[in-house]
Amino acid sequence: MHQNSYAYYARVVALLNPPAARRPGVHRGAVVRSAVPESACIGENVVVGRGVQLGDNVTLQPGCVIGDGVSIGDDSLLHANVVVYDRCVIGRRAIIHAGAVIGSDGFGFAKEGERWVKIPQIGRVVIGDDVEIGANTSIDRGALDDTLIADGVKLDNQIQIGHNCSIGENAAMAGCVGIAGSTRVGRRCTIGGAGMISGHLELGDDVHVSGGTLVARSLSRPGQYTGVFPLDGHAEWLQNAAQLRRLAKLVERVAELEKKIKPMEIEY
Amino acid sequence: MHQNSYAYYARVVALLNPPAARRPGVHRGAVVRSAVPESACIGENVVVGRGVQLGDNVTLQPGCVIGDGVSIGDDSLLHANVVVYDRCVIGRRAIIHAGAVIGSDGFGFAKEGERWVKIPQIGRVVIGDDVEIGANTSIDRGALDDTLIADGVKLDNQIQIGHNCSIGENAAMAGCVGIAGSTRVGRRCTIGGAGMISGHLELGDDVHVSGGTLVARSLSRPGQYTGVFPLDGHAEWLQNAAQLRRLAKLVERVAELEKKIKPMEIEY
Amino acid sequence: MHQNSYAYYARVVALLNPPAARRPGVHRGAVVRSAVPESACIGENVVVGRGVQLGDNVTLQPGCVIGDGVSIGDDSLLHANVVVYDRCVIGRRAIIHAGAVIGSDGFGFAKEGERWVKIPQIGRVVIGDDVEIGANTSIDRGALDDTLIADGVKLDNQIQIGHNCSIGENAAMAGCVGIAGSTRVGRRCTIGGAGMISGHLELGDDVHVSGGTLVARSLSRPGQYTGVFPLDGHAEWLQNAAQLRRLAKLVERVAELEKKIKPMEIEY
Repeated sequence: MHQNSYAYYARVVALLNPPAARRPGVHRGAVVRSAVPESACIGENVVVGRGVQLGDNVTLQPGCVIGDGVSIGDDSLLHANVVVYDRCVIGRRAIIHAGAVIGSDGFGFAKEGERWVKIPQIGRVVIGDDVEIGANTSIDRGALDDTLIADGVKLDNQIQIGHNCSIGENAAMAGCVGIAGSTRVGRRCTIGGAGMISGHLELGDDVHVSGGTLVARSLSRPGQYTGVFPLDGHAEWLQNAAQLRRLAKLVERVAELEKKIKPMEIEY
Repeated sequence: MHQNSYAYYARVVALLNPPAARRPGVHRGAVVRSAVPESACIGENVVVGRGVQLGDNVTLQPGCVIGDGVSIGDDSLLHANVVVYDRCVIGRRAIIHAGAVIGSDGFGFAKEGERWVKIPQIGRVVIGDDVEIGANTSIDRGALDDTLIADGVKLDNQIQIGHNCSIGENAAMAGCVGIAGSTRVGRRCTIGGAGMISGHLELGDDVHVSGGTLVARSLSRPGQYTGVFPLDGHAEWLQNAAQLRRLAKLVERVAELEKKIKPMEIEY
Repeated sequence: MHQNSYAYYARVVALLNPPAARRPGVHRGAVVRSAVPESACIGENVVVGRGVQLGDNVTLQPGCVIGDGVSIGDDSLLHANVVVYDRCVIGRRAIIHAGAVIGSDGFGFAKEGERWVKIPQIGRVVIGDDVEIGANTSIDRGALDDTLIADGVKLDNQIQIGHNCSIGENAAMAGCVGIAGSTRVGRRCTIGGAGMISGHLELGDDVHVSGGTLVARSLSRPGQYTGVFPLDGHAEWLQNAAQLRRLAKLVERVAELEKKIKPMEIEY
């Protein structure tokens, strides 16, 4: 379908299917420790900490837990049981689906002998405007600096974003993607389902990673990148996979053949 | 172990270990906006929306959030903090584990210039009888039509099912599986842990996908399918993986050798 | 950075950034059915079941659901909306992040004709001291015996640990890892992001699995193990992946060439 017609379709469906009516107010069992606008809709059993700033028309569905010092922009909607840790920032028009966790500690430990010593994670998660985050997705807070999710980013379900990552404007990631810590993903990048990006890498703008692909080096040039073992019947796979482990040896055998055939060629 | 004896074992263990006694009633802090049977056990701080239909002996453990218009069949058990979005349907004897999310929006956006426009997701999730769903698993609602989970399906933890998928009767999927949108999985299929199925595919009945395998094409014939890079010591892997990226070239070199040796053979 | 200096840095950051003050007491909407120490901090809308044993200075943040007979050691911190199923044991100084689920049923079914019969999961999860567990991570209870997480284990977000696994002391796993049922992971093992370990395997002490690697056999020797399809431009990948499915055939062709060239060599 033509892209513009697809966007047109999106708008028509939205017009024909307005969202359910909001019921502003603080609902039963909610505990709100900050001053919130009258337009806020705080669902049942929501907990809102101290020093929280809510924009206009924010909806917090039942069971959300909003830590101290959090800021959430106008018209944002958090579905049920979302958790936002202390001091995180969420922009305007966010849609965050049920069970998502924003601002959990990054995975940072120093080795001391055989044991791991926790490195306190004192950065935040800072999320721009028009971001959508899927169900049961987790975004870790930064260690010292912040984890950054730019305007217009769309994240599907079951995604993991490590500490100190920076995700560029209008990037989109399908389900089950993982981005390890301190990696920068450029603007308009797309990452297919279950794509995995190692830590401390830089993906330039307009890099597209295929589903199921592991990226272990930085990618500065725009384009589509893939690394997936091709599917096969199990018996055929067994044969090929076994040979794969001897591939370097096979390359040597071919080089040997080439060397041997070289003098023979001279004769002809 | 013989399969029948294994099923027999399952029944004996069940007999010897009856589930904890249910305590019917609406517990403290629960907010119930629909008429529910007296046999319902509505745990602490559960929220049940408007127009919800519960069968007999439904158990909703603490912190569950059940949207408006949801239907849940007889004898179903939702563990703590499960979220079911508006209008979704769950059959009889369901077991849904903690943190699962049923009916979150599918990942549907139209591109408009650099930005993504959300396509409203107005379908439902419809789940048959005797389905078990693991902890922190997410199942997206359909865009226009419904996402369908047939009778007897068993889903492990941390699974992602995209919008408009259809999962056939008695299919089973191990942990961390992802099924992208609009894919149909046949009856009695099994998908090993972390298996990933791309979108808009069709897997016939009795297709078995090995763990860690990415499926990027439809599979109509029954059988076991695999695509996994074989494990090796890191040094050996480095060698073989480097050669793999030159495999097409190696094939050319072998073809060249074959061409050269052809005339020599005639002489002998 | 030198490891000791890194650990030193961790301690300095911790000193300069003490955790937010605890507010002991049972907060609004919490339902506590067991006797708990005065030092416990039970957040809003927490549910604590019967026969629960809490050590000193335990913090349960809002929305946590603690099943009957659970035990949690001194100084442990459960972030918001964590669910701990009945009878599980958590040691001292645990940090469990939001949305984690401890003790859900293992994925155990016996086949009976076309249908799956549930095998009751009556073991527990037993977690040692100084364990950290990431956001939205799930750990299944054992079928008969227990799932064991030893002292000092660090688990990142979105991890799945199957029933009856045993994870050795000070092992660490990055995000999106999956460990299938009944696998034993040795002491000090590390598993990179999205690493997947099949069921019923044994990984010895000091085994290190690279990110994105599927392990389908036991590994007794210490060392680094890897199995990842190398990333490439999509066009190049297509070429190489297609050849990969004919690798066994290529090996035969090379062997044929070697056989043919053998008698020619004698002449020289």
